[in-house]
Amino acid sequence: MLRGRFAEGISPLLLEFSGTVQGDLEFFYEDVWGSQAHVLMLAKQVIISKHDAGKIIECLEDISEEFGAGQFKPDSSLEDIHINIENRVIDECGMDFGGKMHTARSRNDQVLTDTRLHLRQEILGVEEAVLELQNTLLALANKHSADVMPGYTHMQHAQPITFGFWAAAYASMLSRDLERLSNAYKHVNVCPLGACALAGTSFPTDRKYTAKLLGFDDVIPSALDAVSSRDFVAETAAALAILMSNLSKLSEDLVLWSSFEFKFIEFADDFATGSSIMPQKKNPDMAELVRGKTGRVYGALMQILTVMKGLPSGYNRDLQEDREPLWKALGVVKLSVAVMDAGLKGAKINKENMKESLDTDFSTATELANHLVREKKLAFREAYTITGSLVKELVSHKKTFRDVVDVKKILSKSGVEIADWEISDILDPVKSVHRYKSLGSASPKEVKRIAADLLADNKARAGELKKRQSKIEAAKELTMKEIKLLRT
Amino acid sequence: MLRGRFAEGISPLLLEFSGTVQGDLEFFYEDVWGSQAHVLMLAKQVIISKHDAGKIIECLEDISEEFGAGQFKPDSSLEDIHINIENRVIDECGMDFGGKMHTARSRNDQVLTDTRLHLRQEILGVEEAVLELQNTLLALANKHSADVMPGYTHMQHAQPITFGFWAAAYASMLSRDLERLSNAYKHVNVCPLGACALAGTSFPTDRKYTAKLLGFDDVIPSALDAVSSRDFVAETAAALAILMSNLSKLSEDLVLWSSFEFKFIEFADDFATGSSIMPQKKNPDMAELVRGKTGRVYGALMQILTVMKGLPSGYNRDLQEDREPLWKALGVVKLSVAVMDAGLKGAKINKENMKESLDTDFSTATELANHLVREKKLAFREAYTITGSLVKELVSHKKTFRDVVDVKKILSKSGVEIADWEISDILDPVKSVHRYKSLGSASPKEVKRIAADLLADNKARAGELKKRQSKIEAAKELTMKEIKLLRT
Amino acid sequence: MLRGRFAEGISPLLLEFSGTVQGDLEFFYEDVWGSQAHVLMLAKQVIISKHDAGKIIECLEDISEEFGAGQFKPDSSLEDIHINIENRVIDECGMDFGGKMHTARSRNDQVLTDTRLHLRQEILGVEEAVLELQNTLLALANKHSADVMPGYTHMQHAQPITFGFWAAAYASMLSRDLERLSNAYKHVNVCPLGACALAGTSFPTDRKYTAKLLGFDDVIPSALDAVSSRDFVAETAAALAILMSNLSKLSEDLVLWSSFEFKFIEFADDFATGSSIMPQKKNPDMAELVRGKTGRVYGALMQILTVMKGLPSGYNRDLQEDREPLWKALGVVKLSVAVMDAGLKGAKINKENMKESLDTDFSTATELANHLVREKKLAFREAYTITGSLVKELVSHKKTFRDVVDVKKILSKSGVEIADWEISDILDPVKSVHRYKSLGSASPKEVKRIAADLLADNKARAGELKKRQSKIEAAKELTMKEIKLLRT
Amino acid sequence: MLRGRFAEGISPLLLEFSGTVQGDLEFFYEDVWGSQAHVLMLAKQVIISKHDAGKIIECLEDISEEFGAGQFKPDSSLEDIHINIENRVIDECGMDFGGKMHTARSRNDQVLTDTRLHLRQEILGVEEAVLELQNTLLALANKHSADVMPGYTHMQHAQPITFGFWAAAYASMLSRDLERLSNAYKHVNVCPLGACALAGTSFPTDRKYTAKLLGFDDVIPSALDAVSSRDFVAETAAALAILMSNLSKLSEDLVLWSSFEFKFIEFADDFATGSSIMPQKKNPDMAELVRGKTGRVYGALMQILTVMKGLPSGYNRDLQEDREPLWKALGVVKLSVAVMDAGLKGAKINKENMKESLDTDFSTATELANHLVREKKLAFREAYTITGSLVKELVSHKKTFRDVVDVKKILSKSGVEIADWEISDILDPVKSVHRYKSLGSASPKEVKRIAADLLADNKARAGELKKRQSKIEAAKELTMKEIKLLRT
Repeated sequence: MLRGRFAEGISPLLLEFSGTVQGDLEFFYEDVWGSQAHVLMLAKQVIISKHDAGKIIECLEDISEEFGAGQFKPDSSLEDIHINIENRVIDECGMDFGGKMHTARSRNDQVLTDTRLHLRQEILGVEEAVLELQNTLLALANKHSADVMPGYTHMQHAQPITFGFWAAAYASMLSRDLERLSNAYKHVNVCPLGACALAGTSFPTDRKYTAKLLGFDDVIPSALDAVSSRDFVAETAAALAILMSNLSKLSEDLVLWSSFEFKFIEFADDFATGSSIMPQKKNPDMAELVRGKTGRVYGALMQILTVMKGLPSGYNRDLQEDREPLWKALGVVKLSVAVMDAGLKGAKINKENMKESLDTDFSTATELANHLVREKKLAFREAYTITGSLVKELVSHKKTFRDVVDVKKILSKSGVEIADWEISDILDPVKSVHRYKSLGSASPKEVKRIAADLLADNKARAGELKKRQSKIEAAKELTMKEIKLLRT
Repeated sequence: MLRGRFAEGISPLLLEFSGTVQGDLEFFYEDVWGSQAHVLMLAKQVIISKHDAGKIIECLEDISEEFGAGQFKPDSSLEDIHINIENRVIDECGMDFGGKMHTARSRNDQVLTDTRLHLRQEILGVEEAVLELQNTLLALANKHSADVMPGYTHMQHAQPITFGFWAAAYASMLSRDLERLSNAYKHVNVCPLGACALAGTSFPTDRKYTAKLLGFDDVIPSALDAVSSRDFVAETAAALAILMSNLSKLSEDLVLWSSFEFKFIEFADDFATGSSIMPQKKNPDMAELVRGKTGRVYGALMQILTVMKGLPSGYNRDLQEDREPLWKALGVVKLSVAVMDAGLKGAKINKENMKESLDTDFSTATELANHLVREKKLAFREAYTITGSLVKELVSHKKTFRDVVDVKKILSKSGVEIADWEISDILDPVKSVHRYKSLGSASPKEVKRIAADLLADNKARAGELKKRQSKIEAAKELTMKEIKLLRT
Repeated sequence: MLRGRFAEGISPLLLEFSGTVQGDLEFFYEDVWGSQAHVLMLAKQVIISKHDAGKIIECLEDISEEFGAGQFKPDSSLEDIHINIENRVIDECGMDFGGKMHTARSRNDQVLTDTRLHLRQEILGVEEAVLELQNTLLALANKHSADVMPGYTHMQHAQPITFGFWAAAYASMLSRDLERLSNAYKHVNVCPLGACALAGTSFPTDRKYTAKLLGFDDVIPSALDAVSSRDFVAETAAALAILMSNLSKLSEDLVLWSSFEFKFIEFADDFATGSSIMPQKKNPDMAELVRGKTGRVYGALMQILTVMKGLPSGYNRDLQEDREPLWKALGVVKLSVAVMDAGLKGAKINKENMKESLDTDFSTATELANHLVREKKLAFREAYTITGSLVKELVSHKKTFRDVVDVKKILSKSGVEIADWEISDILDPVKSVHRYKSLGSASPKEVKRIAADLLADNKARAGELKKRQSKIEAAKELTMKEIKLLRT
Repeated sequence: MLRGRFAEGISPLLLEFSGTVQGDLEFFYEDVWGSQAHVLMLAKQVIISKHDAGKIIECLEDISEEFGAGQFKPDSSLEDIHINIENRVIDECGMDFGGKMHTARSRNDQVLTDTRLHLRQEILGVEEAVLELQNTLLALANKHSADVMPGYTHMQHAQPITFGFWAAAYASMLSRDLERLSNAYKHVNVCPLGACALAGTSFPTDRKYTAKLLGFDDVIPSALDAVSSRDFVAETAAALAILMSNLSKLSEDLVLWSSFEFKFIEFADDFATGSSIMPQKKNPDMAELVRGKTGRVYGALMQILTVMKGLPSGYNRDLQEDREPLWKALGVVKLSVAVMDAGLKGAKINKENMKESLDTDFSTATELANHLVREKKLAFREAYTITGSLVKELVSHKKTFRDVVDVKKILSKSGVEIADWEISDILDPVKSVHRYKSLGSASPKEVKRIAADLLADNKARAGELKKRQSKIEAAKELTMKEIKLLRT
């Protein structure tokens, strides 16, 4: 159809290499919607007649129905879904009508319109999943606000925290992921339609009208920018990659905590898998897979950035490579978030093991040093040094903070006199977490406060999400209404 | 100093591998400011006495002066700049005073505070440079709004555009880069100080006060999130990487246009370089280098994402690797933008060559098809096919659109009758761009309109930038004021 | 089947996330072959009886036939293809026979065996395609060894070269790509089977025998290394990524040369595409797409490296993510090479345009300087400076090297006297390339010599390739023979 | 010096952006050597006189001495080190002599020569470090060949292995890393000198002679390939990135094993660091940093690949960006390997804890199933199912394999009768590892055998390395000898 200028058809090898018909099915409905809006605009601007427009739209509806019924068989030799649909429209209602559909439009702006329509929906889907995971984490934060566990730095017991504190930290990270996705959405939901090939057109189109019919927030001002740029793709991929880096962190924690050595957590049986050879195995596959699938999303980001590097302005065919990594990344991320959410919901939290793990460690050493600062008026660095020596000596005698007599004796050598009961009191992990006073600390009170703030944030974001979804629905309805009006 | 718990000093090999003293000099002043704010807070909260605080701050000022005079010689064996400074403070005013500086603080939150203080300044610097480049592009857009040139898709002449239209498209892209940088800034300019190691502290600190003294917009709610997360680093790097992808596009255009074959643009002699062997060469090195340095920034992003992948929560030493790629990327980007700006300012735009390049091409073919739609009432696809055949036949006879008689004859064979003068008129590239009507098209009028809108946007952003800068200045002054008050 | 230890079946969500049944179909036949070899070994070592082995192998053959006939319907709920096949074998010949197939084996070593069997075949396929492309380039090198064109540095005309010289350079690059692929093959074609889960087994297996049956070059010595390592995947991906970087360079040249400004090359009509809006367009899509698909392969490499980063030893489920990027990258590369080959074969080389392009440039300046060194006994740097000034003055008067009188006059001012005929002679591009003397230079003689060497290299590699292919075929036959023997 | 063709000097901003003087110091000596070889060749081929050559070489020696004494102050305004040196030579011995040094050479081939000379030395350095680390691992393998520990899959106890088996697996991985480095070396150690700008030269140079003087294995056949290609850089970076992925795995193991929960290993005090706030901390920083620095090397690879993507053939200034990531990656890798080696050498292996960790797990379940296959003639899948149920029931009653009475009773319910002593025997982890029979298994005997093979391999590679080093030394001596001959 587009080969009037050529002496030959396209080589089958090149067609196999360059064709996108299968991948394009992903945004079939978006393509139909985009064409409906375009045709409505052409009629409104009297570029084609209302009658012509009505005919074309009827055809599009037929094709759409066929597609829904699984009866639309695209022809791979027609390069992509757009030419397939135009071809069908021409076939069905004749060149005199169908031949007018592509007036004042290029595939360049058409494909980008479809991509953006589909992408915005996918972003909303990921956001929804993340909000749910955040909710789950906040429920854990509230429920376990006072259940102590070791806090780690360098994978070493550092200071006592609570499991709720841990959960709230992840909920807090996800807030920023949601913001990044929401920011990306703003750069996605703007309309390229009408930019045509790269220069706009001499037809008196109304780009604002099509943008409105399609629920876009605005029109992209420059036609050349509209067809050349894929930064919205890279921005989305970057937001997803960063989100996955957070999920990979969460996964790492969960994999470690499922181990024999930690036993802090146990996934439900339906969220674990076995081995083909080792009968005893219960594996936290789901967390491993989320961690592993981080690679897909990093790879997708790198793919997109590579495609964009060093391309001249204007449309280049390389840009066709924007969608494969995008849909892949979105699919993987959405599923990863959902799996993580379901896994956490069903997991058993072994509070006792977490608590026990603090019994023989030295994680309250900082609190002892702080106590010496407060009560013995030592400079912190002095108190730190005394406590460090205490630990060194205890370790060399295989003693712990539970050996109060030894602690007392060793401290005494440093000139620090302190009662037995006070030692026990200071070094108690549970009391320690209750003693934290600073904003955002691991004290149960602060955990609840943080969780409450984040929950409010979560609700606000859910509201925003709903608003965006509603705007899309309203635009769909407006398009339907305008189609009806056209026919009257 | 931190090795009270160890029997031995640190191995020189490990010190070489892990020490950061040299790199830390980058944020020396930020570290001092952070310590001042922290000590002021400790005094305000009566965790240490005003007198102690005064002594420490005096010491810090001395060290800062020394550093400014190039006389501060950090000791590499003390791991990093933070321990160096604390060590100096203790040396100078004794353990009784200096030993109190690190009360209720860890290096974990301290380093992150310094990083964020420095990073926000660097981001503002990049934004400033981008605003200037955008200004330059908009000046070009206005000056050349009507100077025609070929618009390219697939590196083929597609449709006539104007050089101003091209310049405005890049200005439009940069607007989104600025937004991404500004969004990243929001996630950067929040305060981790007071998170301590990961759990907060039992001292009654006032985190909001230190945040205010340091000009942060807010406190990071969760201590664990504050020390574990580097998404603000990755987000900044991603924004920079995407910006570089846009600059690499701009570079590619400029390199091509500097070639013998295009001759659309010529860099000033002071922005070009020669060859060591070929006497005649004048190379557009600067654009090539910007394109090449895109690799540094992509690499930096991948580095950061790799570091973050699969790390458990809490601080891990791997995270130290966040700053090297960050400072590197920021430095490269700031310079790349400045070089691009200076290069464009001095470049000679060869309007004549651009225009001539349209003389023998077929880039007004779309306009001819559009004309047939409008005047001959053909369906677009029909008009498209007729025009395609016309081009095919002209090419086979080595004719162009300038051969009006041939055009007329060939069109006539397709049943399209059209006068000589009309053919000339339609196929004239200059007239073509004036005929574009759609919003955001390459018509001189639209170019001016887009440029005006973007200029208003540019001014608004410059205002925002100034506000952020002022807030930082005000915070510095507030710190100074509080120090004075402390002494009275 | 593997859930005897669990109270519940696997969650459908987790199954969707973790299952690999569809992707595994890629190496169905390899899995069957691997199982046949394994079972033959079990019988040979009297771990199971010959009778048992015979039964199992019969079943495997049935399933294989079904698969070939498109009748094998794997059950997605059985996680992967391996469990599906084992399940079918047990179903068909009963637990007493089928239950023995997985003796002394784990999925860990099984999957890796399948992956390596499939991967080696794919690598050979890519190598074959590259050899063909290299052949095509060498044919071009020979045919056009004396057809002059501008050689570029910094996209500026640098010195005259020949089109054959250009083609030979790419053939030379591909030789190293072939070596890298061949090196990767060596790390691929070693046998993990028998490593079991990670520790080997207490059954007296014969790993060398299975390796031989499967055509592997050797056994991987350490079982833990065998199941933990994916460096063979990363090495293959890296070889492919570097190959694509070379193809992206070739693509860039071809895209530029297809442009209106260059017109050095024109793809055949069946290897070019049109526009949906611009009737005149003939786009070099194929080269653009190869360039764009470079991103897929870079992304795949980054994905694999990300997965491997920071994983502990032993098998982790993350490693399942090795195959998706691998098959994807191999498929894209093989097709890219084939498309490039077909595109070049059909392309029209516009020798005249290439030659003309040298008429008004200064690309023989270096030869002039060299001449002054040889004939006028000037130091090269002096000759260089004189020639540089000459070009500067010619440019300022809009003259070229063709303006012999001016050249003579300007040189004379620098004290260099040189006859008209000599100037013409020295500055003639065609004569210039014939004057090159150094090994590997652009002189037609050297081009032919380089091409001949590379062709010999190409033939030797093709021989190597055939040997590897034959070894695989021989192993397949050996397996069949052993199966027959088993039955007697 | 190279600006005879320009009206103006280079802009200071561009100079800051593009200059490489500081970075070039890295290969100062290589540049001098390269120039010496080039000048010797020019004299040998009578392109310049022996007298001229002698003078130039004298100058080069002077400059080299100055540099060694720290007195050579390069001028940043002269772009790079090459122009600096040529300029000094001209200054010192006059244009009549010094002006001849750059005859038949371009910076394009000169820089690449320097890069390759330096790079090959760096690769040998990395290989040397890796060989040493491999040696250390093999010593551990031998020493601990029979010291049992849990083998992990999915971070779950899988089967008993020995610490020696673990160490040998890493030694086995490193063998392939060494091979990849050695393969990269072959593509590095070939000579581009004499390719000049891209086309070779009309001077009768002898490229084979300079290649020999510089210790290269061969000459790069095509001049255009020689100056356009950076695949040797990418290949080296890829080999380093894969090596780092292996080190990151090793690091992850060591970080986990240093934790409170594992306590399998303890770094020496001089290879651990403390906290600024928590007095008790002993952190495995060194392993964390190696893991983190993996990001630098991945980033460097991605940087290089990005630079190469889509560049046209011929030299482009982007290619200057090849060295920064290369030197960075090599430095980081060499240090990482050395640190890992030293860390392992000093670490304490807690054999008792490793063994104890097997006391209450189910890691011998596979051996029980295997036993049932062997002694009770069950099909493996049946035995697997029975053992799986056994574990399930034991877990539900909080029993372990040590509870022999329960094991016996439960097995009996499945119809399996087995004596108490036999149960104890089968389920004993120490006996289990001795029972492994397969090639490459975790049995102490196999561990020793694997280690012995790898040690032989290590020695052979060390020999190869020495040979390459000797060849370089011999070439240096030959150059000195030829210089002496020149003077006589």
